[in-house]
Amino acid sequence: MIHSILDSTTTIVAPATAEGGAVMVIRLSGEDAISIADAMFRGRTPLADAEGYTLHYGRIVDGERVVDDVVVALFRAPHSYTGDDTVEITIHGSKYISQEVIRLAVKHGARVATAGEFTRRSFLAGKMDLSRAEAVADIISSDTEWSHDVASRQMRGGYSCRLASLREQLLRLCSLLELELDFSEEDVEFADRKELEQIVEDVATQLRSLVESFRLGNVLKNGVMVAIVGEPNVGKSTLLNALVEEDRAMVSDVAGTTRDTVEATTVIDGVRFRFVDTAGLHSTDDRLEQMGIERTQRAMDEAHIVLHIASVERPVFSAVMPKSGQHYVRVINKIDKVSTCESADAHLMSAKDGRGVEELKALLRSTVDTATLNRSDVLVTNMRHYEALHRALEALGDVERALRHGLSGDLLSEDLRRVLHHLGEITGEVTSDDILHNIFSKFCIGK
Amino acid sequence: MIHSILDSTTTIVAPATAEGGAVMVIRLSGEDAISIADAMFRGRTPLADAEGYTLHYGRIVDGERVVDDVVVALFRAPHSYTGDDTVEITIHGSKYISQEVIRLAVKHGARVATAGEFTRRSFLAGKMDLSRAEAVADIISSDTEWSHDVASRQMRGGYSCRLASLREQLLRLCSLLELELDFSEEDVEFADRKELEQIVEDVATQLRSLVESFRLGNVLKNGVMVAIVGEPNVGKSTLLNALVEEDRAMVSDVAGTTRDTVEATTVIDGVRFRFVDTAGLHSTDDRLEQMGIERTQRAMDEAHIVLHIASVERPVFSAVMPKSGQHYVRVINKIDKVSTCESADAHLMSAKDGRGVEELKALLRSTVDTATLNRSDVLVTNMRHYEALHRALEALGDVERALRHGLSGDLLSEDLRRVLHHLGEITGEVTSDDILHNIFSKFCIGK
Repeated sequence: MIHSILDSTTTIVAPATAEGGAVMVIRLSGEDAISIADAMFRGRTPLADAEGYTLHYGRIVDGERVVDDVVVALFRAPHSYTGDDTVEITIHGSKYISQEVIRLAVKHGARVATAGEFTRRSFLAGKMDLSRAEAVADIISSDTEWSHDVASRQMRGGYSCRLASLREQLLRLCSLLELELDFSEEDVEFADRKELEQIVEDVATQLRSLVESFRLGNVLKNGVMVAIVGEPNVGKSTLLNALVEEDRAMVSDVAGTTRDTVEATTVIDGVRFRFVDTAGLHSTDDRLEQMGIERTQRAMDEAHIVLHIASVERPVFSAVMPKSGQHYVRVINKIDKVSTCESADAHLMSAKDGRGVEELKALLRSTVDTATLNRSDVLVTNMRHYEALHRALEALGDVERALRHGLSGDLLSEDLRRVLHHLGEITGEVTSDDILHNIFSKFCIGK
Repeated sequence: MIHSILDSTTTIVAPATAEGGAVMVIRLSGEDAISIADAMFRGRTPLADAEGYTLHYGRIVDGERVVDDVVVALFRAPHSYTGDDTVEITIHGSKYISQEVIRLAVKHGARVATAGEFTRRSFLAGKMDLSRAEAVADIISSDTEWSHDVASRQMRGGYSCRLASLREQLLRLCSLLELELDFSEEDVEFADRKELEQIVEDVATQLRSLVESFRLGNVLKNGVMVAIVGEPNVGKSTLLNALVEEDRAMVSDVAGTTRDTVEATTVIDGVRFRFVDTAGLHSTDDRLEQMGIERTQRAMDEAHIVLHIASVERPVFSAVMPKSGQHYVRVINKIDKVSTCESADAHLMSAKDGRGVEELKALLRSTVDTATLNRSDVLVTNMRHYEALHRALEALGDVERALRHGLSGDLLSEDLRRVLHHLGEITGEVTSDDILHNIFSKFCIGK
């Protein structure tokens, strides 16, 4: 059950656009949105008499004083973002006017909206489930083709549909099992145990594929972490600068120039890569250098790709042990220093003169397999969803075990309910004020 | 005649809002705005079939790919800001989506708009004269009640009407005088010279009052410059900090702490005040200090108000000569250091404990006479207009002289045409590409 600490009937107001453009939009939404707007708007007709999905030219006034010439967009419930009556006022892009219009709306009965409150209302009105509401925030912060693509898939609801269909299958099982309980005297089995096992296995396969999709979904959303490691003075910082095409890291001929880790990001074919340039790996007694090397180790632990650099002058790769699931790429740098060279298992390049840089980028990009993704594929990108799916999968494991041990319908049904609970957390069928607060407080004001 | 170097038929596109909010608005305007929008928009009906002043929910697509779920506002010529067909697309507030939508619009035939080009088109289409177009930029940058008020008056056109009525009177005179020329053989005078003198005097009075209004209009728009001067160590920096309610200037007990001028602004009752804290005035051989004192002198020259501070411990005001038209205010500071004190011609206060600060603010604010301003009063706020009015007034002086000396109608008419020319520069009846470029290039993109 949803009990909101924020009242859901008061009309709320907030700027929906950032400050500083040619125009700004002030959004008013709630039961009294239209009457509040009419109290401050003078157009050809009152908004109360107008149909939804219409535009109105006029003035915002405070008594006799004209605050601005505006265009008002009118949306009538339920055909609006929030599901409530909504008025969007396009004003000249001045902070002063924006403040005045909001002040007037408040004077006439509105309340300033909290972060994400418009979307929260949309969710509470059943206009979108929780995972789609979360995707709205992801859409806004997306800055690459693929981070936009995965957020867009989620907002458009392919993911919600997939979860809904899984829930439906599980719910049908539950009701069959619970029907058995009503007839428990008669010792009948409405739910064929073989068929049940089949469905559970089927659902588990789908859940597993969703959980696994998080690996790709997460890098598309947040970027691919690449740790650049190697001995001192093999040209790691020069390589970083070449990859991101700017002078991000300080470079010199002195071994050990980079002490702390340096980060820089670049977009390769629609995917963001986050490079971490690290201190050179070598034994040292220098306390500062040791700290740098510890940070290198941490960066390596977190990386999706470990880029191990050696110099052509000493093409030896010290023992670096990639973690399971990590891509490990060997690079021999500084080929500008020799006339010819070859290597079977390392990428040859010169960060200095640029040879091999584009090829290395292509190599990195090929670790992110977007080519085989279909438009209809669903990817999990949200840590909260990933965790809920994990817990659902664990609970489903209990159902499988219970089935194998021939446990009774009431125990099976209980385990199934736990699976349903965790899936419901994702879309918001099951939720709490805490969860809602966590989600919507990360939104911007006005959304 | 207006010849624009920017073609005025191509459909232009630009973001109309700043980056970073919950939503952004992309504006498309021009002959093909609707067909270009239709090429990328999938709604319930094509926009081509829809009426103006309507809203449409749908998706922006690039072939099969969905770029965003949007709301489109449709304005049909001539009922739009520019006078051309205009489509405003409200997208989720992501820079990536904004770039994609603009890229698509360009792909379908639009051109990215230059700064101020939408407003420029509005002017060229005769939707607003030049002084009102300029006021749009002032409205956007206005950040106080009064800077907004004066820009708003100008945008709403009271000023344009006043100029139009002056031009009309002068034009009527011109035609009468020029009619005389046609009948010059017959030596008739259609224009009664006495009546003519009366009208010219009347127009001159009105022009003079407009020119004089610049003093107030300018401070309301740009703020009131206040130079804080006085001997070293009388507490000028402490006073500045107290006035703007923040630690803007470095303070210490050491005389001469402030070497360069320090500026800070605050809004008092809707008007911005720009305080300049200066180096103490005293004789010195120190080169650095001398430079500081020169800058003090410059700040004093530019100030609207000279705030002369002395300490209660030595309540003597060295010779400071305010310029004509400047307000000169004497302040005795540090009254916290004595038990009682009085002064007939100085404001008593303690910047340290705050006594007298609010009273000083009220005193400063009273130098800007907004109380007697009527809603219908017209204020000149724009330097370009001020200069044009000045030149118009000079030319009118020539007309007056010519009348007094009984010069012939053709000479009078020529002088009158010069007056008309300068007035026309303000509203844009007379203009050039250079003037237009100067004006609109100061606008933001998307306006």
